Amino acid sequence: MDRKIGLFDAMRTMRAMRRLKPDPVPDELIREIIEAGTWAPSGGDTQHWRFIVVKDPEIKKQLQIRYKRAYEDLKERFHAAPPPPGKSELQKQRMLAARDHLTEHFHEAPVLIVCCLVADSGSGVAAGASIYPAVQNMLLAARALGLGATLTTRHLLYEPEVDEILRLPDEAHTFAIIPVGYPLGNFGPLSRAPVEQVTFLDRWGEKYL
Amino acid sequence: MDRKIGLFDAMRTMRAMRRLKPDPVPDELIREIIEAGTWAPSGGDTQHWRFIVVKDPEIKKQLQIRYKRAYEDLKERFHAAPPPPGKSELQKQRMLAARDHLTEHFHEAPVLIVCCLVADSGSGVAAGASIYPAVQNMLLAARALGLGATLTTRHLLYEPEVDEILRLPDEAHTFAIIPVGYPLGNFGPLSRAPVEQVTFLDRWGEKYL
Repeated sequence: MDRKIGLFDAMRTMRAMRRLKPDPVPDELIREIIEAGTWAPSGGDTQHWRFIVVKDPEIKKQLQIRYKRAYEDLKERFHAAPPPPGKSELQKQRMLAARDHLTEHFHEAPVLIVCCLVADSGSGVAAGASIYPAVQNMLLAARALGLGATLTTRHLLYEPEVDEILRLPDEAHTFAIIPVGYPLGNFGPLSRAPVEQVTFLDRWGEKYL
Repeated sequence: MDRKIGLFDAMRTMRAMRRLKPDPVPDELIREIIEAGTWAPSGGDTQHWRFIVVKDPEIKKQLQIRYKRAYEDLKERFHAAPPPPGKSELQKQRMLAARDHLTEHFHEAPVLIVCCLVADSGSGVAAGASIYPAVQNMLLAARALGLGATLTTRHLLYEPEVDEILRLPDEAHTFAIIPVGYPLGNFGPLSRAPVEQVTFLDRWGEKYL
């Protein structure tokens, strides 16, 4: 645990942790993670986020079944894709293996945090602006608390079934599920495409820096 | 500037800064902000984000015209809304005044960072999962660098016009505009609804903690 970690150190080493120990995580730490989420901005500061802390083994298993089914739907595409920017073929293969692992063991994470929005924030791409900043704060907080976590959205392929499992009311929508647990791997520096490759000046296509 | 700021301190004091000085911001700091953005997760690690650093006064003004028009469309709704959770009527009035200010002075921010996604990430709510975590990292980085910033999406009401101003290709979409500049106000603690009010156990509606 490194609660005193510097902001930049936390951001620059916040790897997706897809291999987790099944050991329980104290509620106090989950609470800290969610509180960090509530510090994020949301449209009009409406804070329409709701978080479901799923610990019940049967509910986790029901979610894993949909998560795995969605994986089967997408797996071929994942494998056919080129390595992500800044990554080698070997790094891609490692990521795919970690994804396989997460899919098989999704329900064994001690906690799944389901991130939702209520009310009229539920439609249009900008709705995500009111929940994913909170998700990012939660991932950073987990990292500082020595907990592994990763942002997943794949369950949305089976959204109606997931909504039923979680008994979501009509006005609520899920946007992410974050499996949280003590990590089997280590945090460390990330490989990304350099800033120059993704930044323009003034208009699309104009070179910056 | 407080590059060594702790993660939790940065998150817990990251107020939306809507009043900015027009003084220029060094490109080196903008670069650090965008680099922090690239450390965020994205779906399949595809890093489909693109950032347009807008400094040209004429382009900024063109964006402000749309931003203000969208404000006129929404203003009545903003004023009629109750204070956000955890906030008083006075705090709401202050936020509305700051919003008025930002709307009038949007183009006077030395830099507007337009956050985009390319390719097939552009549709569905989950697309936001590949850009808003980066936006949150950028806001946190700005805070650590002593720069004011705020997440805005209101330009999306005039998306086709904005796309034309920025010469966006068909396969790209904007998700946020972040005005960045030295702040006129101070960073400080946030007021939010407590965790207990927004968290459930296992299923929607079941009490947690």
